[in-house]
Order: sequence, then C-alpha cells, then structure tokens
Amino acid sequence: MAQTTLNNDTKTTSQPIAHELAKKQKEVSVAEFFERNRHLLGFDNKRKALLTVVKEAVDNSLDACEEARIMPEIIVEIVEMGNDRFRVIIEDNGPGIVKKQIPNIFAKLLYGSKFHTMKQARGQQGIGISAAVLYSQLTTGRPTKIKSKISPKDPAHIYELRIDTSTNSPEIIKEEETIWNNKDHGVRIEMDVEATYQKGDQGVDAYVKQTAIVNPHATFIYTNPKAEQMIYPRASEHLPKEPMAIKPHPYGVELGILLKMVKQTEKRTLQAFLTEEFSRVGPGTAKEICENSSLDPRMKPEQLEHPHVEKLMEGIKKTKIIAPSTDCIVPIGEELLEKGLRKEVPAEFYCSVTRPPEVYRGIPFVIEVAVAYGGTQPGDQPARILRFANRVPLLYQMSACASNKAIIQTDWRRYGMSQSNGALPVGPMTLVVHLASVWPPFTSEAKEAIAHYPEIIKEMKLALQEAGRQLGSYVNKKRRVADQQQRINIFENYIPEVAAALADITGEKKEIITAAMRKMLEKNKEFIMRNQAQVQEVDSEGPSLGKSYEDDDEDVKEDGKE
Amino acid sequence: MAQTTLNNDTKTTSQPIAHELAKKQKEVSVAEFFERNRHLLGFDNKRKALLTVVKEAVDNSLDACEEARIMPEIIVEIVEMGNDRFRVIIEDNGPGIVKKQIPNIFAKLLYGSKFHTMKQARGQQGIGISAAVLYSQLTTGRPTKIKSKISPKDPAHIYELRIDTSTNSPEIIKEEETIWNNKDHGVRIEMDVEATYQKGDQGVDAYVKQTAIVNPHATFIYTNPKAEQMIYPRASEHLPKEPMAIKPHPYGVELGILLKMVKQTEKRTLQAFLTEEFSRVGPGTAKEICENSSLDPRMKPEQLEHPHVEKLMEGIKKTKIIAPSTDCIVPIGEELLEKGLRKEVPAEFYCSVTRPPEVYRGIPFVIEVAVAYGGTQPGDQPARILRFANRVPLLYQMSACASNKAIIQTDWRRYGMSQSNGALPVGPMTLVVHLASVWPPFTSEAKEAIAHYPEIIKEMKLALQEAGRQLGSYVNKKRRVADQQQRINIFENYIPEVAAALADITGEKKEIITAAMRKMLEKNKEFIMRNQAQVQEVDSEGPSLGKSYEDDDEDVKEDGKE
Repeated sequence: MAQTTLNNDTKTTSQPIAHELAKKQKEVSVAEFFERNRHLLGFDNKRKALLTVVKEAVDNSLDACEEARIMPEIIVEIVEMGNDRFRVIIEDNGPGIVKKQIPNIFAKLLYGSKFHTMKQARGQQGIGISAAVLYSQLTTGRPTKIKSKISPKDPAHIYELRIDTSTNSPEIIKEEETIWNNKDHGVRIEMDVEATYQKGDQGVDAYVKQTAIVNPHATFIYTNPKAEQMIYPRASEHLPKEPMAIKPHPYGVELGILLKMVKQTEKRTLQAFLTEEFSRVGPGTAKEICENSSLDPRMKPEQLEHPHVEKLMEGIKKTKIIAPSTDCIVPIGEELLEKGLRKEVPAEFYCSVTRPPEVYRGIPFVIEVAVAYGGTQPGDQPARILRFANRVPLLYQMSACASNKAIIQTDWRRYGMSQSNGALPVGPMTLVVHLASVWPPFTSEAKEAIAHYPEIIKEMKLALQEAGRQLGSYVNKKRRVADQQQRINIFENYIPEVAAALADITGEKKEIITAAMRKMLEKNKEFIMRNQAQVQEVDSEGPSLGKSYEDDDEDVKEDGKE
Repeated sequence: MAQTTLNNDTKTTSQPIAHELAKKQKEVSVAEFFERNRHLLGFDNKRKALLTVVKEAVDNSLDACEEARIMPEIIVEIVEMGNDRFRVIIEDNGPGIVKKQIPNIFAKLLYGSKFHTMKQARGQQGIGISAAVLYSQLTTGRPTKIKSKISPKDPAHIYELRIDTSTNSPEIIKEEETIWNNKDHGVRIEMDVEATYQKGDQGVDAYVKQTAIVNPHATFIYTNPKAEQMIYPRASEHLPKEPMAIKPHPYGVELGILLKMVKQTEKRTLQAFLTEEFSRVGPGTAKEICENSSLDPRMKPEQLEHPHVEKLMEGIKKTKIIAPSTDCIVPIGEELLEKGLRKEVPAEFYCSVTRPPEVYRGIPFVIEVAVAYGGTQPGDQPARILRFANRVPLLYQMSACASNKAIIQTDWRRYGMSQSNGALPVGPMTLVVHLASVWPPFTSEAKEAIAHYPEIIKEMKLALQEAGRQLGSYVNKKRRVADQQQRINIFENYIPEVAAALADITGEKKEIITAAMRKMLEKNKEFIMRNQAQVQEVDSEGPSLGKSYEDDDEDVKEDGKE
C-alpha cells in the first residue's frame, strides 16, 4: 500500500509525498522515549535493574542528607515476592520532601534540584528516581509508594504515584496525611520491580558494601532477599566538607552559552556581567578581557550582537584567568580512601593518591587512586578494578570507561606487574579509581562509565603512575629481599667448606674463620628481618653481601606523554 | 551560608530545610539536558562531532528517500573555514519536508516520524538532526539553514533556525520562499560547526565509504575539506524492499504497556483488542489467550483492572504464538554484503551469512556477518571489525558493543586464527557484523554501540561461527596444500639419490625409475595447482603423497552453549 501512495517518481498530479510523511511527524515525550530505551537508564536486564533501583534511591538519600548536613542513616530492604518480583524499600533520615514537590520529584523525568546547581552531587539530571518508578510500573504495573516527613512538627504525607508516559507527568493514585512515629524527618520509598537477585561483583550486596567504603560517614542497614541483614555502621563522625556551588568559569563557556547568558543577564554593563556571572573574574580580569576583546566594559550586555560575542570569546581565550575554585568538589582524601580500602581488601601493601584539581570544559574535577597489593589476591588474574564517581560505585560498562583506558595505557610492567599490550595488568592487586566532579561526564544516563575526555584520562594516568611508582618500589624491595635471603642461604650452606679452605690457606683456625663468617651473616640477616617487617620503608642500602644487585627502576621518570 | 541556614539538627523553630531545598527543584528542558550532556549525542570531541553531524543528516536523507521510494542521491560537502570551524552541507533528492514541519523537525529534540512506527529505519528517536543543530549553535552561535522543496510545482522554502534550549522549541531567525532551480524535490542543510577533520578509520571519509558499501542503491558525491571529491555511484538499480510497519507482538509487551494499551484502545471487546492491536494474533489465538487467562473474550477492554491485566499477561505467556512477522526488517542479504565487502577489502577469501530473524523483547531483528580473509591484510594484527546497524556504520564505542563481546567470545583458534583469552582474533582478516532491526537497542543516544541483549549476542555468535567454519575450512585447505607442496619439494630433491639406490637394489634402469617417480610427482603437482586456484572448493582428498595428514577440524560442531 505504502508503495503506491508514496511513489513520487511517477510525477502524477497527486499530492507530494511530503504531505503524507508529515502526518506521522510528531512530538515524543521524554518518558515514552526512556520507556522504550530503558537500557539507557540501566534497566537492560533484570539483575542490573535491581541494582539500578537501589542505587538511584540511595544516591538521592545521601545527597539530601549531606545537603541538609545530616549524618545519613539509610535502610535498604529487598523482599522477594516470587515470580521474579521484588519489593524494594529505601528509608532515610534526610530532610524529607515538601508535599507539593513529591509528585514531580518521583513521577516526572528531568525534574530535580541538581541540574541547575554547579556543585558535586551524586544525582545530576533529575532522571534517576523517576526512571526507577517508570521501570516499576512498566514491569509490575504497580504505583510507587512514597512517605515523606519534613520536621517533627509536620505530619507525614503518603503518595502513590505513576508516570503518565505520554505527557511525562505524575498521575496521583492516592494521597493522604499520616503519622510517622519515631521519625523526625525522612523519606521512605517502596516499589515493586521485576528483577533477579544475585550475589557477586555486580550485585546489590557489592554495591552497598562499596558505597559504605567511600561514604564512611553514613550508616547502612541492608537486608537482602535472602533475609540476611548486613549493618555497615559509620566509621567517621564527620560529614564530608560541604561542596559550594560555583558559577561557570570563562574558559569552560561555549559560544552558544555565552550568547544565551548575554541575553538573559540583568547586569547593566559588560564589566558587571563578567565579574558577577563568572567565577574567577575580578574587576582587573574583566577589564583585561574587555581590552583583549576590543569591547567597552561599559557596554550594555543586551547590545552585544553575535560578532561582539565572538570577539568576547576570543578575548577570554587571550586572557590569563586562574583555574576555577575547587570548593565545589570534595574528594574522599588519601587517608580515608586508603582506610576504606584496608577494610575491604586484605593485602600487604596499600597506597593512595589524591591529585590536585583539574578542569575539563571549564568543569573542575579531582582524580583519586588507591592500590592494595598482595595478600591472598590471585597473582595470575587481571587486577580487580573498583570505580567510583562522586562516591558512587560504578559496577557496569567497565570497558567503556575512561578509567579502563587509563589503566590499560599505563605501563604496569614498570611497577613489577605483568601486562600484555592493550590489556589490564595481571597481579595480586586491587585498583581504585575515583572521579569527583561538579559534572562527571557519563557515557549514558545510567551513569555507569565515565566518558573519554582527554583531560580526565590524562589525570587518571598521572594518578595511576604516582601510585604505581609507590607500588613498584615496594615490589622491587620485596624481590630484592627475597634475592638476598636466597644468597644468604647459599652462603650459609658453604660456610664449613669455605672456612676449611680458608684455614688451609691462611693457617688461621677454622673455628675463628667460621665465627667471623657467621657474624657477617647475622648482620645481613638482621637487615633482612627489618626489611621484611617494613619492606616499603627501607630507603638506604644495608650491608651488602656478594655482588651488587641489579639496578632497580624505582625512580622511573613520569611519562608526560599522553 | 548554606551550612547555617540548612542545619536542621539544631531543631530550632526555623522552617524545615525541605522548604529551602524545594526552591531549587524544577523542570529541566530536554534541550538543556542534552546541551550539557552533548557527549551522549556523539559530540564529545571535535573529530567525532564532524562525523556525527554528517551521519545524522545522511541517515535522515536515506530514510526519507527510501520511505518515498526514491533512488537516493546525496551530496555531502565539508568546507574548512579556519579556526576549527567547518561548514557542513548535505543535499538530497528526497521527498522534501512540508513547510510547517521544518522548524520542529530541525529545532526540537524528540520530534519525528519514526518513534511511533515499528519498522526498520536509520533514525528512530527524533533527536539526531536537532542535536546537530544544537551543537552547531553551541559552538559557533550560528543558526542552521534549511532549504526544502516538496514537488516541482511547489516553491522551495528557506528557514534559518535555532533551538531555544530553555523550552526545547524552534526559534525562527529567517523564513522565506525561494526558487530552487533544477531540483524537483529534496532538502539541503547548511550548518557551521566547531570540529576537526582527520582521515582514518573514524573519520567522515571512512563513514561515507562504508555507508556506500552497505547502501549500494545510493549515490554519494562527497567533497572533503581538502577539496577532494569522491563519487560513489550506485552499484544497484533496486531500492531495498520496503519495510512494513508492524504492530507489537504479544510476547514483547510488558505489563505496564499492556495496561496503557487497554486504557487507550477504542476496540469494544477483548477479542477485538487482541486481534487488531497485536501482530500474529488471529481469532483462534485470541480465544486461546482469553481461555488461558480465564477472561471472557467479550469483556470490554476498559473494564480490565490491574489483576485482569496480570492474568492476561499470564495467559499470553501460556499461549503459543508464532514469531513476529519480519516484513518490518530488510537485511542487506548475503550476496550484496559480500559484494560490498569485495569492493572495499582486497582479500583472497570471502564469505557471508544472513541469519534467520530472531526476537528480543518482542522486537524482531536479523544478524548478518561477513568475512574477508588474506590478501595484503596484516597477519600479526587483531582483525579489522566493521560494524553496522540498519545500514549505518558504527565507528565509535567498539568495546561497549554487543558485537565486540560476540567476537571475543567466539573461539577463533578453531578457525585457524590466533587469539588470546578475552581478546579479538589475530589474523589477516576483516569482519563485518550487521544488525537490522525495528528498534536496534543502542547504548547511548549517539547510536554508536549495540546494547548487550543476550538474544542479540547469541545470534551474533551463531553467525560468526557459521562464517568461522567456512573460514576455517579454507584456512585448513590452504595449510594442507602448503604442506603438500613442501613434501613434494623434498621428494623432488631426493629423486636422483632414491632412484640410484632403487636401481641398485632392483636391477631396474635408473632412468626408468626416475621417470616413474617424476610422473607420480606431476600428478600430485596438478592436484596442488588445482587446489591453489580454487582452494575453498576442494572437497575430496586428491592423490596422497607420503604419510597421511593430520586430521583437520573442519567439521567442528556448533557451540550451542551461551
């Protein structure tokens, strides 16, 4: 049918095909779009779906608690209901959500508080939790139940919500006031989802455990579908420093955004616009930008036409402006990161690195890396990788992640590991990579992997090299001590023979020679014992026995090339 | 500041923090969302940006031409403007776009004709071309210029458009009627973008070339920024069969969708609803579904409550329903695929496989695979992989793609390649993998990699194994012939000596023995010559010289495990 009505090549007097095609052209609601593309949101299989639902809810709880400066206490409960269905319950002690915002927060995609604020948070786009609601209704048809209380004096509110996907708006199934005893404030979510539960590296158990590692200020009480309860009490009584919202940095602003800002500003002069709507632009810098752009600082922003804004962009590029403030980012810190890793991975050597802040597209970020080496970790397997972004564990899409690329491109053979070309290092090792940023660029809405921005990969590599050198130094020392031990053993075995021979030649008493040789040996043994205890602290050469050792490459130069 | 006003733990009489937080909660426009997340749309770096812009426009042109049954003729021109800016021009001979739809099609994200139609197309979500417009204005501030003409009798229309990102709606900069000489119908787009141009496997040149391979019915005239013009004339005078739109298959419908369909249908009975709104449900099947669900087929759909729909889902699962029609998919076909590959890759052996249609989440798809082996391809490198989805080359995110997983999980050592664990096969080989589907599931909006649906990976592996066996058979024959040649050479060298020895023993004349031996050798040589010419056609053993050969594993059983 389509064949005949659409055929234009006949050039008859019938209507052009374009009219026929136009009938089908219409708007797609963002909820319909994600309903069909649910794998973009982390719902591509039943196992991952369970993780994603928990993750989105826990992310929000942690963000809300921290924003309200409350020590988080989060209850996660998953109940198996048979037939591949699970009830997921997440309860927090956060600030709660005001009644009128509940429907939009939970049942409207692209609605939230974090998109328009430039500071580090787990959530960013206002999609996550409503995506979970969408998945729940898609697979079980059930509405999501939300209870919220904002203060001891306010009543609690209960909502049952669905998303009307054709309009991307909340559908309120039930709405009532209630009393929530023993709770000053907080939110409780209950949703039914189709899912499967499995233990292992990519499951909810691993997620909660890893989340506890990088959020030592939070308490988690987790009950899995096997009714096993795991409690992770907080290990730190201090909330992380509060990240401060920042304004955009001039270097990160693109022409199109600048054009929009110039139109929307309420500032009266270009000078005021520059100093007040950007970070790191004081009056002096603003003046310099104007000079470099050949624009009058007293000009009204609304008078700036396209060519002026192009000149302004050029002027910004020519002006030296200090890097953005990093108050907006709060890394975990070397000490806490290493502490967390020690709790999780029993090993013999640990180290961690927090790099200074850097910038991609004008957006500040910090890379942190930690290594746990040895112990019972298998030596013939690729290193285990733990990835985090803004303190959230990333459990999927490893191969698409910037961190994977950075690890593969680092030469681990220098640090005593084996590694084939283009592959992960092999050795008894766990590697942690954390990206903290105002806006971590993810490869999809599911926030599973970090996009390949060259600035980010470069920083990751520098951090890995820094940790790698510490690791290499340890591994070399360990090898050297082992070599020395072996030499001593050989030497010890030959003492009687050598002593006899020396006695013959020198005429000295055999017993005296033997004693001298044993003394020499003891000295070396002491050195080795010291080294074995604290292998990584040995810095100077001890008394040497026999020939000199091979040069070790502890002080490998940093590979500046990218 | 936030620290003090937000602190709730003091439990003073001040307002609950939730009110403070609520002030920041608001809607995010989908255009703002993608403006910030432009890497999701394929705009994460300048090189890829150029490719993405061209790809989105060419995808649309090809789709429009095919839908209107017009043999596509597409002009692509990229002009370097200095300072990392390029003007990209795409012109087609498609059906054109009616005037009133032009602004929405080009300057509103999530607007299009393909999302709501279930048939194979390159575009799907109504994001691509407006994303290109968004990127253009973001990086150069310039509007996009569109010219469209829908028939020889209609005037052409010119628009200059921008997207108002805060509302995701078109902003019309200019709008005028014009005359477009020598053009019956078509669309021409001009946009300026910040980009870099590079040749190589991931550049526009490679994209156009690969597109020409899998679209032999289209002509491409491409001028790159170096002003080199490449013309790819069509190799086939036949449009691909037109894909037919299908209705959803009952097996692929989820509970949430079924609930929605039941509410929205205009059908009067459950029986009519089932037969008319689904594919592959006739009156008999509908009756069976109703029986299996314990529901009355005469029930009105609007009377179906949640528990009824749950029962209906169960009933559908219990009923045997034939697989969805595959009219909606048009694979390239083994012949055309191999032909295309022959044009692109000079090699000594080719084969291709088109698998029967399969289904994921109720959505039909077909996997096609082709192999080109030998020739001048490097033997010590990983195989070159060419990936396509609905005839569109996929040039990025290889490692995140289902095809990568399928290739890695195939045991290529069986087919004579070398391969280390978890890696691509190494050998002088190019592999083509094509997914044709009503709805290819991509890992991101940029449509660069296919998501890891197990059904898709399984089909890919079966196709690769099928092609692999043909390849293995060829490689083995080739090796056998080489071995035989070597044996003959050795034999030939020893003829004089052996003949002399035999003459001594038997008393026969040395010349006669030599002649007999040479004759025997000639027979074998002939056999080898024949084999060398048509190595893959040899099926029976020829005359054998010396010991029997090692068994070859040509008839490896298909690895059914997934």
